[in-house]
Amino acid sequence: MAEDKLTPQSENFSEWYNQIVQKAELADYAPVRGCMVVRPYGWALWENIQAALDKRFKASGHVNAAFPLLIPMSFLEKEKEHVEGFAPELAVVTHGGGELLEEPLVVRPTSETIIGYMYSKWVKSYRDLPILINQWGNVVRWEMRTRMFLRTLEFYWQEGHTVHSTDKEAMEETRRMLDTYHDFAVNEGAVPVIRGRKSQTEKFAGAVSSWTIEGMMRDTRALQSGTSHYFGQNFAKAFDIKFLDWNNELQYAYTTSWGLSTRFVGAIIMTHGDDQGLILPPRLAPTQLVIVPIYRDDAERSLVMPVVEQVRQKLAAFRVHVDDRDGLTPGFKYHEWEMRGVPLRVEVGPKDVEKNSVALARRDQPGKAGKTFVSQDGLEHSVAALLDEIQAALLARATAFRDEHIYDAKDYQELTEAVQKGWALSWWCGSAECEAKVKEDTKATTRCLPLDQPGGTGKCAVCGQPATEKIYFARAY
Amino acid sequence: MAEDKLTPQSENFSEWYNQIVQKAELADYAPVRGCMVVRPYGWALWENIQAALDKRFKASGHVNAAFPLLIPMSFLEKEKEHVEGFAPELAVVTHGGGELLEEPLVVRPTSETIIGYMYSKWVKSYRDLPILINQWGNVVRWEMRTRMFLRTLEFYWQEGHTVHSTDKEAMEETRRMLDTYHDFAVNEGAVPVIRGRKSQTEKFAGAVSSWTIEGMMRDTRALQSGTSHYFGQNFAKAFDIKFLDWNNELQYAYTTSWGLSTRFVGAIIMTHGDDQGLILPPRLAPTQLVIVPIYRDDAERSLVMPVVEQVRQKLAAFRVHVDDRDGLTPGFKYHEWEMRGVPLRVEVGPKDVEKNSVALARRDQPGKAGKTFVSQDGLEHSVAALLDEIQAALLARATAFRDEHIYDAKDYQELTEAVQKGWALSWWCGSAECEAKVKEDTKATTRCLPLDQPGGTGKCAVCGQPATEKIYFARAY
Repeated sequence: MAEDKLTPQSENFSEWYNQIVQKAELADYAPVRGCMVVRPYGWALWENIQAALDKRFKASGHVNAAFPLLIPMSFLEKEKEHVEGFAPELAVVTHGGGELLEEPLVVRPTSETIIGYMYSKWVKSYRDLPILINQWGNVVRWEMRTRMFLRTLEFYWQEGHTVHSTDKEAMEETRRMLDTYHDFAVNEGAVPVIRGRKSQTEKFAGAVSSWTIEGMMRDTRALQSGTSHYFGQNFAKAFDIKFLDWNNELQYAYTTSWGLSTRFVGAIIMTHGDDQGLILPPRLAPTQLVIVPIYRDDAERSLVMPVVEQVRQKLAAFRVHVDDRDGLTPGFKYHEWEMRGVPLRVEVGPKDVEKNSVALARRDQPGKAGKTFVSQDGLEHSVAALLDEIQAALLARATAFRDEHIYDAKDYQELTEAVQKGWALSWWCGSAECEAKVKEDTKATTRCLPLDQPGGTGKCAVCGQPATEKIYFARAY
Repeated sequence: MAEDKLTPQSENFSEWYNQIVQKAELADYAPVRGCMVVRPYGWALWENIQAALDKRFKASGHVNAAFPLLIPMSFLEKEKEHVEGFAPELAVVTHGGGELLEEPLVVRPTSETIIGYMYSKWVKSYRDLPILINQWGNVVRWEMRTRMFLRTLEFYWQEGHTVHSTDKEAMEETRRMLDTYHDFAVNEGAVPVIRGRKSQTEKFAGAVSSWTIEGMMRDTRALQSGTSHYFGQNFAKAFDIKFLDWNNELQYAYTTSWGLSTRFVGAIIMTHGDDQGLILPPRLAPTQLVIVPIYRDDAERSLVMPVVEQVRQKLAAFRVHVDDRDGLTPGFKYHEWEMRGVPLRVEVGPKDVEKNSVALARRDQPGKAGKTFVSQDGLEHSVAALLDEIQAALLARATAFRDEHIYDAKDYQELTEAVQKGWALSWWCGSAECEAKVKEDTKATTRCLPLDQPGGTGKCAVCGQPATEKIYFARAY
């Protein structure tokens, strides 16, 4: 790992981001344009994200399965809006086993079509419903402007695809999974996302309505961090998913899909990181604690190391790493683990051996403010409490930052000013023209109509027409 | 699930296999030739396989990462044997984002090349070694003759790729992972595989030596169930993976790779299954126990169901499912869970309520022989013991079957007879000509030179020339 410092966030946030991804060894550039290699540290973070989500999915009755990577091109064309949305982004397999294929296959950009095809085979009766299947996998979208984790040609995600016998149940599922993402983001990632509905312009290609969790990054840009889509009968009609209902009549089913991707790694980096590097929330951090032994010579070393081992054993319930590399100064090690965002550092030196203590240093409070000295007795309890405190502090800090950068914008001037320094929350008449005008003038897009609405009516901040809902405008990734 | 019976193994093993995959809802045919959809029950089995392996990999210092799906065609061409082996099986992406690509990309058939490229960037000094990375993912090989789980265009696997500073350490790793696969197969899958080295004809394209675990299926065919390859410096030279050694001299590194795939699901099906359906080893079974309530009317139902709930709670430490579907007979349910191979059935009826007992029915011993009545008191202990007993019985049965079908073949006549009814274990001179002759005459191939060698010398069963090692010949999947 390079020892040099990061470009400060305030100087060039985008450069800071690119550097941190490399220096914390989260990912590296692949030899194919726009693709990334997720390195072991980045993948361990993603594995923790996966575990936290998968547990939630299974607790709400979902099961995992695997559908093919390669999809016949003709499948994409069955849903008009869907193919319009995805056609420009496809990677196409034209040759297999040395032969030109009769029909080209696309590398899945998302799996509604092939899963819809299988569901049409599996669903016969209302007794087969609901189907609640999730898939963990990779997808490919031929993006022009790419950035590690945020937008890459290939990315990793989960995509849930469900089938229901009523519109009500399908909408409940759409909302349940939105809430699941919100719960995960807030309580595991300490990312205080805002839930809401996408505008018709911004919804998923083929959806009736799309729902999103939106996070505010430390440059105040928005990051769409997970989405849940209600399809009504759109895909059921395109793929002929029909069932015999309770009256023995054939009906089209209702479907949903919902996804969260490795993009969430970007959300964590840009919500919590600082100029020293990553800051990882304890619940998702691959390493929650690093123990750094401190000694100046062999005599001190042989005094310290047995205590380090005792401390390690005491903390075995946590994800703990002992940095016992020889020939490196403690300061060098501190710097490395700060860059990697390990939430808590445990220092053990000769004085600690003498006093039966350790020093604990919080990553989220650099310097003296975050340093405490505690007894080795009951250390596992002090550490557990401190990790909870760090988790809560990260969420509180990110929430405060977000709230400080949301501006109630009553008119167009306030709106255009607000999106230069944060997010604008404004009455909106619902027209695509107003969205387009804001985008053209400011590059800000509508992020979501939040669930939390004030009620009543107001005037659209863009055109002044009557409006019944408020919406967030922001520059976004 | 269809109620009709399976074609018996003895009548048509291949048909039995295809039916069981469908009827147990492990997988379904995808709309693209040779691809499969792994259904939730099949994927849950694979998830348990993944967990058992991943735990072993991590315990031996390996970490996971993710490398790109798409590989520049030119990468494949850097290792001569490798490209010769894989070129005929490639799926090729020629178009991306609506444009013809300057260089075609292949969908990875295996990842030695792209990982080798990244390793050449990451490895500078002996301090960077060893690299012990594993990847869970999907690969595509354009196979002509496909069969669910055994050989599909796309399949799921893990591929470990390691780099070492000495040949000794790389060979130790190759052998360590072979032993890991053996341990997993025997102790989790109850599949008594035989470890050994592949002949030069049968080794992986680009390897110095390939090592394998070979299982005997119930039709006596061999199934290669996991492989571990020693590459020497072949890939290091092709991809320029060099490091500064302890003397500050630049050296090529030594690499290995090792993989186990969804093919292992096929190994489990064909090692343990019978004419009633799947039989799953308790340690890997998605559902270890199914509780079937037995009642004839509402009165009995209201007597039985509260006890079923008590029993379920008592058995909550296991992977347990209560089949409380109304309107289906117990017999119908038994049949379904037998088809799905659930190791143990727990029956609770009115008499059991009265006697504070339950009936336990073993999947591996159908009928009365496998049925016992035990007290509800301490049920969790009886069940734990019985699951261990089932796990051991499956391994013992498969081992006995295997050993009954291995024949010491001294000459060519014995060899050709043996491979019609099982495996031949014969002295072999080491020549590819002798392998080719056996293959042409009998369709049997060499499976492995087992680790366990008798020592001494003998005469090659094919040509009569002196031989120092014994090898297995068998018809294989």
